[in-house]
Amino acid sequence: MHLYIAYKNYSSWSLRTWIAMKVANIPFEETILPFYHGDSLDKLGERFAIPAQVPVLEHDGAIVWDSLAIMEHLAEVYPDRQLWPESASLRTLARCVSSEMHSGFMNLRQACPMNCRSNKRLSKEQLALIQGDLERIAALWAKFEAVDKPEGDFLCGQFGIVDAMYAPVMWRVLGYGLDVSPAFNNWAKAMKALPEMQEWLAAAQQEEWVLDEYEACAETV
Amino acid sequence: MHLYIAYKNYSSWSLRTWIAMKVANIPFEETILPFYHGDSLDKLGERFAIPAQVPVLEHDGAIVWDSLAIMEHLAEVYPDRQLWPESASLRTLARCVSSEMHSGFMNLRQACPMNCRSNKRLSKEQLALIQGDLERIAALWAKFEAVDKPEGDFLCGQFGIVDAMYAPVMWRVLGYGLDVSPAFNNWAKAMKALPEMQEWLAAAQQEEWVLDEYEACAETV
Repeated sequence: MHLYIAYKNYSSWSLRTWIAMKVANIPFEETILPFYHGDSLDKLGERFAIPAQVPVLEHDGAIVWDSLAIMEHLAEVYPDRQLWPESASLRTLARCVSSEMHSGFMNLRQACPMNCRSNKRLSKEQLALIQGDLERIAALWAKFEAVDKPEGDFLCGQFGIVDAMYAPVMWRVLGYGLDVSPAFNNWAKAMKALPEMQEWLAAAQQEEWVLDEYEACAETV
Repeated sequence: MHLYIAYKNYSSWSLRTWIAMKVANIPFEETILPFYHGDSLDKLGERFAIPAQVPVLEHDGAIVWDSLAIMEHLAEVYPDRQLWPESASLRTLARCVSSEMHSGFMNLRQACPMNCRSNKRLSKEQLALIQGDLERIAALWAKFEAVDKPEGDFLCGQFGIVDAMYAPVMWRVLGYGLDVSPAFNNWAKAMKALPEMQEWLAAAQQEEWVLDEYEACAETV
């Protein structure tokens, strides 16, 4: 398998797929396509007739170009890794919450671009704009607290796709000093402590690319 | 199973799930929540602690509140209906294309709200705005033409989730007189001819609700 991603510091969609594959111990090669620096991503898009977006997974000749489709593909190819939870009701909940991220949380995603390296604070106006999204995340975490599930620090007990889908939210909440809920904080602590997440962070810290627009969106503290 | 949807004339997300269930012959009851008329959808959202959005599927006590998650849920509960194609590579392609609709095609969705009853034409400026989306749809249809698949008029041969996800695009292309590709036209003809789609259209034509904003977005011809 070959995973095409973008900046580790900034690319939230890249992190989702990368962390899912790493934690599930799925072997892959990776290529970084820094889409604001050169045209490597445009060329990939043209080559495979897909949108110039990351992540893209190449597997046995198949090109899988959407993150949620990549997750479903991986779950089918590696059923033993339990990327979705074994319980049918928990799996349906995890899919709802994963799909909700795939099409939603636009205000949070726009106001707080993922930036693993920095520590910023939003203005009051920006905070007001994302308040609904933060409350929704707290409500989702409360749903996971209320269901029967295996032991573990993650949303469905063991780490899975739904955790990966919200991995960038962990960086956003920590990096912009946001307040969600105690349950969210416990989850974020476990996510950050994953050795694979520390590996991602170390790579993000070493990247030399800087996206001015992402850096200027809020005040650094 | 109980499916909560909105206006048949206007609600594109409702149509996706409804048509998938009908064509797959999955029995369900339906409730229409006209979200611009009264607060029935807000109340449903509060009751289940979910966003005030349709569709919502209630099944054996589970609340499934995102359309793509509903599709995956149905595919699991009714494996014999082959809502996803049997071939793994075709299934991955169908999932990519379905997910791309779930998070994309914003310009087309905004410029051309689904409206089964009417026949409208866009301005040159509006057409320019959606040109990229139309070209992308033509490119996706070309991908399906290029792969091995079972016989049939639909994207993967037999009707499935990916057709359902693009069902509103059929109404948009026909209702706004848009031009995609000959392959798209053949598919649209088969989609419109489905008895279940004709049943949906008949219900849409009988609805008395009118959404002024949706009606005023382009000139009626």
